[in-house]
Amino acid sequence: MHIAILTLDGFNELDSLIALGLLNRVKRPGWRVSLTCPTPQVTSMNGVTLQAQATLAEAADADAVLVGSGIKTRDYAADADFLTGLHLDPARQLIGAQCSGTLLLARLGLLDGVPACTDLITKPWVEEAGVRIVEQPLYARGNLATAGGCMASVYLAAWTIARLADLDAAAAALHYVAPVGEKGGYVEHALAVIEPYL
Amino acid sequence: MHIAILTLDGFNELDSLIALGLLNRVKRPGWRVSLTCPTPQVTSMNGVTLQAQATLAEAADADAVLVGSGIKTRDYAADADFLTGLHLDPARQLIGAQCSGTLLLARLGLLDGVPACTDLITKPWVEEAGVRIVEQPLYARGNLATAGGCMASVYLAAWTIARLADLDAAAAALHYVAPVGEKGGYVEHALAVIEPYL
Repeated sequence: MHIAILTLDGFNELDSLIALGLLNRVKRPGWRVSLTCPTPQVTSMNGVTLQAQATLAEAADADAVLVGSGIKTRDYAADADFLTGLHLDPARQLIGAQCSGTLLLARLGLLDGVPACTDLITKPWVEEAGVRIVEQPLYARGNLATAGGCMASVYLAAWTIARLADLDAAAAALHYVAPVGEKGGYVEHALAVIEPYL
Repeated sequence: MHIAILTLDGFNELDSLIALGLLNRVKRPGWRVSLTCPTPQVTSMNGVTLQAQATLAEAADADAVLVGSGIKTRDYAADADFLTGLHLDPARQLIGAQCSGTLLLARLGLLDGVPACTDLITKPWVEEAGVRIVEQPLYARGNLATAGGCMASVYLAAWTIARLADLDAAAAALHYVAPVGEKGGYVEHALAVIEPYL
C-alpha cells in the first residue's frame, strides 16, 4: 500500500509533514508513505529543503495520493504539462487534497459536481474554477476528499488510514499524536469529523 | 529575534515542523526561525532527509531554542560531548522542549525542581532523571516550557510567539493554521492552554 504525499516547490510544511507523521503510525507490511516531488529536492514556503522519497511517476501507481498545498500552487495549476503528467484517477486511487491542493484537483476536473474544502486564501480561485466550497474542515465523496486549514491535515490523514487500513488504526494514530491530557477528547472529535465520510 | 528548533537525527517530523510552520506566521523584521541541526543534513524517524538551516553553535546565541523529539534522543542524552556543546541558558534564552526533547533538558540539569511534560514513552526516562512529570499538554515556569504529545507542539509554538512577540500574534498564527469551520474554538482552546504560563 503506497500513499504518495504530493509535495511541490513552495510547499506548506504542515500539510505534507503532518499527513506523513500520522500515516507512518500504521505499521503494516507493505505500508509505504512517501513525500512525492517533481524534483529530487523541494524547498518549502519557509525555506526548508527536503529530499523527495518518490517521483511523480510513482504517484500515478500509488494507492492513494494526497496533494499538499503551498505558495506556488497557482503556478503549478496553470502548467498544463505538469497537470497532464499527474495521471490521478479516483476510480482506482484515493485522492485527497489539502488547502491549495484543492485547486489542482479542480483544474484536473476531478471536482466537477463535488463540493470541496480549501483554505480561505485559495477559496476564490477554486470557486473561479467552478467548484462549490463548503465551510468545514473535511469533505469527501467516494474516493475524493478535500480538507481546509493546515491542521485539518490530521483529519485528511485519519480518513486515509480509515479507508486503507481501518478505523481502529486511524484512532490509534490520532491517539499517539494527540496532546497529553487531551487524548480522549481529541480522538473522539477527529473521528466524529471523518466518520460521516467512511 | 532568532528561534532555533533543535532537530536531531531520527527526529519526529511533527514536533519540529509544526513549530516551524506556526512560528513563521510571525512577520516582523528580524524574526528568524531555523531548523538547527548537528550536521548539514538530518534524517527523520520516517526517512525524511532535510537540510539544516542553522548550526548548533547558532543555537547558543538564539533568543529561543525549542528542542524537538525523535527516536535517537536517548543516544544524544547519553552523549556528554553533545550535551556540553549545547550551551543552553534559560537566564538569557527561552528554552522549550517537546516530548523526548524534555529528556535532554533533564540531563542538562535545567529541570531541577521544575515539573515537566513529555510523551508517554519518554516519561519513565525523564522520571529516572529525577524530574516530576505532569499529565498535561504544556507546562512552563519562567523561561522554561515543556510539552507532551506531538500536537502539543502547537501550544509550545504559540507560547513562544506570545513570549517573544505578543498574544495577538500567537492568536493570529493559531487562527491561520486552524481547521476551516473550527477556527474560533481552536484558537480559544489553545490560548486557554498557554495563558496560565504567560
